[in-house]
Amino acid sequence: MANHLGHSLVITSFGESHGHAIGVVIDGFPSNFTIDLNHIQSELNRRRPGQSDITTDRNESDAFEIISGVFEGKTTGAPITILIQNKGHQSKDYDALKSVYRPGHADQVYDFKYGHRDHLGGGRSSARITAGWVAAGALAKQFIHQKYGITIQSVVSSVHQISVPDIFSIDWSGAENNAIRCPDTTVATQMLNLISTMKSNGDSVGGIISTRIKNCPTGLGEPIFDKLNAELAKAMFSINAVKGVEFGDGFKGTELKGSEFNSSSNHEGGINGGISTGKDIEFNTAFKPVSSIKIPQKAEDKDGNIVDLVIEGRHDPCVLPRAVPIVEAMSALTIADHLLLHLKYKI
Amino acid sequence: MANHLGHSLVITSFGESHGHAIGVVIDGFPSNFTIDLNHIQSELNRRRPGQSDITTDRNESDAFEIISGVFEGKTTGAPITILIQNKGHQSKDYDALKSVYRPGHADQVYDFKYGHRDHLGGGRSSARITAGWVAAGALAKQFIHQKYGITIQSVVSSVHQISVPDIFSIDWSGAENNAIRCPDTTVATQMLNLISTMKSNGDSVGGIISTRIKNCPTGLGEPIFDKLNAELAKAMFSINAVKGVEFGDGFKGTELKGSEFNSSSNHEGGINGGISTGKDIEFNTAFKPVSSIKIPQKAEDKDGNIVDLVIEGRHDPCVLPRAVPIVEAMSALTIADHLLLHLKYKI
Amino acid sequence: MANHLGHSLVITSFGESHGHAIGVVIDGFPSNFTIDLNHIQSELNRRRPGQSDITTDRNESDAFEIISGVFEGKTTGAPITILIQNKGHQSKDYDALKSVYRPGHADQVYDFKYGHRDHLGGGRSSARITAGWVAAGALAKQFIHQKYGITIQSVVSSVHQISVPDIFSIDWSGAENNAIRCPDTTVATQMLNLISTMKSNGDSVGGIISTRIKNCPTGLGEPIFDKLNAELAKAMFSINAVKGVEFGDGFKGTELKGSEFNSSSNHEGGINGGISTGKDIEFNTAFKPVSSIKIPQKAEDKDGNIVDLVIEGRHDPCVLPRAVPIVEAMSALTIADHLLLHLKYKI
Amino acid sequence: MANHLGHSLVITSFGESHGHAIGVVIDGFPSNFTIDLNHIQSELNRRRPGQSDITTDRNESDAFEIISGVFEGKTTGAPITILIQNKGHQSKDYDALKSVYRPGHADQVYDFKYGHRDHLGGGRSSARITAGWVAAGALAKQFIHQKYGITIQSVVSSVHQISVPDIFSIDWSGAENNAIRCPDTTVATQMLNLISTMKSNGDSVGGIISTRIKNCPTGLGEPIFDKLNAELAKAMFSINAVKGVEFGDGFKGTELKGSEFNSSSNHEGGINGGISTGKDIEFNTAFKPVSSIKIPQKAEDKDGNIVDLVIEGRHDPCVLPRAVPIVEAMSALTIADHLLLHLKYKI
Repeated sequence: MANHLGHSLVITSFGESHGHAIGVVIDGFPSNFTIDLNHIQSELNRRRPGQSDITTDRNESDAFEIISGVFEGKTTGAPITILIQNKGHQSKDYDALKSVYRPGHADQVYDFKYGHRDHLGGGRSSARITAGWVAAGALAKQFIHQKYGITIQSVVSSVHQISVPDIFSIDWSGAENNAIRCPDTTVATQMLNLISTMKSNGDSVGGIISTRIKNCPTGLGEPIFDKLNAELAKAMFSINAVKGVEFGDGFKGTELKGSEFNSSSNHEGGINGGISTGKDIEFNTAFKPVSSIKIPQKAEDKDGNIVDLVIEGRHDPCVLPRAVPIVEAMSALTIADHLLLHLKYKI
Repeated sequence: MANHLGHSLVITSFGESHGHAIGVVIDGFPSNFTIDLNHIQSELNRRRPGQSDITTDRNESDAFEIISGVFEGKTTGAPITILIQNKGHQSKDYDALKSVYRPGHADQVYDFKYGHRDHLGGGRSSARITAGWVAAGALAKQFIHQKYGITIQSVVSSVHQISVPDIFSIDWSGAENNAIRCPDTTVATQMLNLISTMKSNGDSVGGIISTRIKNCPTGLGEPIFDKLNAELAKAMFSINAVKGVEFGDGFKGTELKGSEFNSSSNHEGGINGGISTGKDIEFNTAFKPVSSIKIPQKAEDKDGNIVDLVIEGRHDPCVLPRAVPIVEAMSALTIADHLLLHLKYKI
Repeated sequence: MANHLGHSLVITSFGESHGHAIGVVIDGFPSNFTIDLNHIQSELNRRRPGQSDITTDRNESDAFEIISGVFEGKTTGAPITILIQNKGHQSKDYDALKSVYRPGHADQVYDFKYGHRDHLGGGRSSARITAGWVAAGALAKQFIHQKYGITIQSVVSSVHQISVPDIFSIDWSGAENNAIRCPDTTVATQMLNLISTMKSNGDSVGGIISTRIKNCPTGLGEPIFDKLNAELAKAMFSINAVKGVEFGDGFKGTELKGSEFNSSSNHEGGINGGISTGKDIEFNTAFKPVSSIKIPQKAEDKDGNIVDLVIEGRHDPCVLPRAVPIVEAMSALTIADHLLLHLKYKI
Repeated sequence: MANHLGHSLVITSFGESHGHAIGVVIDGFPSNFTIDLNHIQSELNRRRPGQSDITTDRNESDAFEIISGVFEGKTTGAPITILIQNKGHQSKDYDALKSVYRPGHADQVYDFKYGHRDHLGGGRSSARITAGWVAAGALAKQFIHQKYGITIQSVVSSVHQISVPDIFSIDWSGAENNAIRCPDTTVATQMLNLISTMKSNGDSVGGIISTRIKNCPTGLGEPIFDKLNAELAKAMFSINAVKGVEFGDGFKGTELKGSEFNSSSNHEGGINGGISTGKDIEFNTAFKPVSSIKIPQKAEDKDGNIVDLVIEGRHDPCVLPRAVPIVEAMSALTIADHLLLHLKYKI
C-alpha cells in the first residue's frame, strides 16, 4: 500500500518521470459532485516547470485527462483516474547517470532497495509525479471549499537565509503576484535576486513554505494515531526534499514557558490533541536545497568508485515556488479525507 | 483504524487514564521469538512517573501483564496483548474539570468531536496511554536488535532556552545517568536547575528530543507515501505535545546551498528519498511546554464562559525525560514494521 | 492486520483458549451511544457452552468486562475493549496433544506456519475466541437496530441430512424456543434426536445456518472489491468450520435460466452488484461436522508418525446452535461497518 | 479503499465499460522480476468476447499497455499500471437504458447508492473491468509459478442442470480444448448444445466453475480474519454474478459425520483453520445466469413505473467460459499476496 495515501479518500500514485504517463487514482471521492476542469488545469499550471525565470526551462505542458469516475461532468462514486502524459523529456541527458548516483538524490537507495531502477529523469523518485497529486488535490480543494467553505493557502516564507519575520501575522493576499510566491514584496525581491545569482552560479537553495487553512471545522482528526497534525506531517514528508514540519510555534515554541504558551491566541497552530480547534491551522514545511546543481561534484558509482560528476539537464535553482501548490494539494487531500472520516460522529 | 499504527506490524492502542486498564494489541509480530520480560519492565520504568525529583509525584507502578500471543516465553504469531492496570489515580482531582476545559489540553476538542467525554485524568487523551506504546516498543526493540543489530537512543538536547550545541557530534553514552537524560552533564545540570525552578513556580517548560538509530540497514522505507521519514514523523506526532519533527539538518539545513548540503557526511539524517541510506538516522522532535500548570489561568467552560482555573493534581514540570523512552518506542515500532515490509524485495 | 476486520468499524480479536483472557477491541464505534450491557450478556449466553443437553458440558460463564471506551454508560469514540476471562479450562486434557495433530483441527498447519504453538484447547484457533466477536456483534446489533431499525436473525436450517425445505419461506419466530434453533419444530425434533445419537456414539455432525437481515437500507456495499456479499462472505469464512457461503438461490440458482432468475422476487438474496437492494438479505453458511470426536482415530504427530488418538475433553457433537449467534454477530459487524462507509454518499 | 484488493500485493481497479480506458494499478509487486508480455495477452484473450460461437459477438481486442512500473522488461518495485483502451463499444445501444433499470443488473442500486450513474454498457458495474484483473492476475501467475512452482486451473464443471460428476477426481488437462472449458468432453458437448439453444431463444444460463491450486506451500493464510479461504471467497464474490463459494466438500460436506469427514484425503479442500495444508486447494464458485437476455421483460424505471423492456446489444448466453480466466486471476492475486504476507514467519 506504499503508493496509497488516505483512509476514506484514498489516492494511488503511479508513474515515472520519463514513462508514458504519470497519474493518480482517487478512490472514495463522494459521488454526484460537479468537477471544475479549469481549476484543475490552473493548479497544474502553478506547479509546472517553465512558468517563470527562476524555474527550470523544461517545457512540460501538464495537460491532464480524466479517464474514469466522472460522467457528464459529475463524479459517479467510481474511482477517478487522472493521466498526465510525459512529453518533452530528454532521456539522453540521463545516459551518463545509469551507473552514477547523483549526490542528494534517491538514485543509490533505489538501487539498493529494489535491485533494478528506472534512472531516466529520476524515474519513480522524480518530483514529476507530484503533478498527479496536484490534480487530485484540486478535486479535494473544490470539495472542501464548496461543501465547507475551507480555503488553503501556502506561501514561501523563507529562502536560504532570507525570511519573512512573523509570517502568520501579515497579509498573504498578494503572494501569487510574484514568481517566488512570497507575500512580503520586499523580501520577495531579495529572494528572487538570490535565486538568480544561484542560477548563474549553477548552485541551488532551499527554504520554508508556510501554510494556513481557514474555516476548517472543529473536530477533524482521529486520535490516537491518525491525529490531524500527524496526518498532515506524513503528507508533507511525502513531498520530495522535505526535511521538517512544525505546527504553530513549532521548534520556537519549545522556548516558551507553559504559562506563556497556554495564554496564546494560537501557539498551537489550530490543532490540539490531534484535533482541529476551529482556529486557523498553521504550519511550516522545510525544504532542503535542490540536489541537482551544475557545479561539478564528486559522486559514487555502482561499483563504489568516486567519480567526477557534472549534472546536465534543466533544473530548478529553488523548488519552493513550484512546491507551493504541492503543499496545498497534500493539505487539501488530508483535510478532505478527515472530513469524510468525521461523518460517523454526526449520525 | 484511528487507533492502529503500522502496516505489517500493527499496534492497536486502547484505554483511558482512569479506566480499568490501558493496553495495546500487537498484531503481526513474527512468531517463535523469545521475549525478555525484564526489558519490557525496565523500559516502562524509564517512562513511569515518580522516577526522579523533576517528574510528577504520582505513583504508577506500571506493572504489565501479557494476556495473549506469548506461550512458554515465545511469541506464537497470534496477537500479543499487553495490559497495564490503572492504579493510584485520584479521580476526585478532576471533579472540577468535568465542564471546564483546561488550556492547552484536548478537553474541549474531544467534547466538540465526540459529544461525550471521559474527563478523568485526561481520559483517552492522557499521555498515560503511551505506557502501552512503550511496552510494545520494547518488543520491537528486542526484535530489531537481536535480528539486525539495530539500536535506538533518544536524548534530551534542549529544554526551554538551554540546549546542547551540535548534539549529534557528541558522545551520548552517559545520557541515562542524569534525571533529564541529557548527554552533556554540564548542560544537564543547568536544565535540572531550571526545571526545579519551574516546579517551584508552578510553571512548565518544553524542549527537544534528539534521536539516533544505529545500524539500520539500507533500503528501509516504502515510497511514495510510506517513506521512512514520513512514517517516523507520523509516529512522533502521535505523541502528546509534539509540535515539530525534523531530519538531519532539518530547518537549519534550509539555510545551506545545494553545493554545501550535497557535500555533507550526513546532512540528510540517514534517510534519502524516503529510504534509509545506511548511515545513522538522526532526527529531532519538538515538545511544547506541559499544559498543566499550577499558576492560576483563565479557562473556557462548556457554556462558553471564561472562568478562573487552578489545576490540582500532580503534574510534570517538564515531560521530556519521560518522553525519551516513548520516542524510542515509536521509532522502534516504525523500524520493525519497515523491516517486515522490506522482506518482499529480498525474495 | 490479520486479526483486524472491518474498514470504518474495525474489530481486533485477541486471545487463546486457555490464556488469561480473550477479547476484542472495537475501533471506530460512533460516540455518544448508550450501551445495553444486558443485551451483550444475553448474546454471550446464546453462544456459551453448557446451555443445553446437546452442547458441550464445559462450564464457561463468559462474563465480560468493558475496560475502555465507555464512560458513564455511553461510548466516547475511543476504542472499546471487551475482556472475557478464561475460567474452568482443563489444560491437562491437552497434555497428550502437544505433539499430536488432531484430525480436522488447525494444529498441524499452525505448527507449520508459526513454528511455535499454544496447543492448549486449540490455542488461537479455538472457537472460544468467537465469544469476543459475539460481544462486539452485540454492540453492532444495538447500533444498527436503534439507528436504522435493522434486525438480523440466523437459524439452523439443516443438520447432517435433515433439512427444512424452503427455509426462507417459513416463519422464524419460534427458532429460539428449541435447543437446535430451528424454526420448524418437527424438523427440530428430528435434528435433536440425531444429535443425541451422535453424542452417544462419540461422533459429530455439521449443517447449514440460514440468515436473514431485515430492514437493511438500500445502497450498502462498496464495489468493486468491498461488495456487501463479498464482505459478508469473508466474515462468515472467518468462523471456524465454515466451508461454504451462498446468497439467495446460491448454488441451486445456477440451475435456473436467466428468464426465470430475473423474474424472481428475491433470487438475488437482497444484494445485487454488491449493493443491498432494500429487500431482505438472505444467505446460507455451511459448517463441516465438528472435528473433535470421541471415536478413536489415526493422527499424525510432529515427527510424521501415524499414531492412535482418542480425544478427551468436552466437545459439542454439533456446533450449529452455538454458531447461530456468531453468524449473527459477524453479520451485524459487517452491516454496521457498511452503514458508516456509506455516509459519504449522503453529504 | 473500495476499489483496492490485497494487503501486501494490492490492486486498484478503475474504469467504466464505455469510458476512455479501463485499467489496474498493481502496488507491492516484488522488484527485479522479468515480465512475460505474451502471457498477459494470452490470458486476456481467454477472457475477451468474441472468442467462440457461444460468447458475445462484441469485438474487444483487449490490447494492453503497461504505463508504469516496468523498465527494460523488469519490474522496478514502483506501482505497475496497465491500461486497456475501450474500443468498439456501441453506446447508442444504451440510450434507452438511461432511465430504465435492467432486471438482474446493478443499474438501480448504483442509482440509489451514488445518485449519479454512468449507464453506458453497465458503466462501473460492467464485467468489462475484469479485463484489468486478468492482466494483473497474469503477473501474479507468473510470479507464483516461477518462484514457487504454483499452478492454478479453473474449469467449468456445471452449466444449468448439466454437470460433471466428481469434478476433482478427473483429468483436467483437456479443458482448454473446448469452447466451454469443461474437462469432460462428453459433458462439454451437452453444455455447448444447451448454450446454443439458449442463444437462439434469447435466454441465458449460469453454472459452476471449479478451481484447483497445485503446489501451494503449506502455511499460507493469516488467521483470524485473513484466512486463506476467507480471502479467496472475498476475491470470488468480487466477480460479477457470483452467488456462492464452497471449499472442498462444501455444502455437500455438511451431510457427512465427523468420523467420515476427518478420515478423508482432502474433504477440506486444501485449507484448514484458514491455512493451506499443502494439499491441492479446491473450491467451487457459483454463477447466476447472465442477466442480459433478449426475451422481453418487465422492468422498473427511475420513476418507479413498470415498463416493457427488450435489451439490445451483444451479450453472452453463458458467461462461464470467459469467467474461467477471471477466477484464475483472482485466485492468483490472492495466493501471491499471501506468499508475501507469509514471509515474516520465515525470518
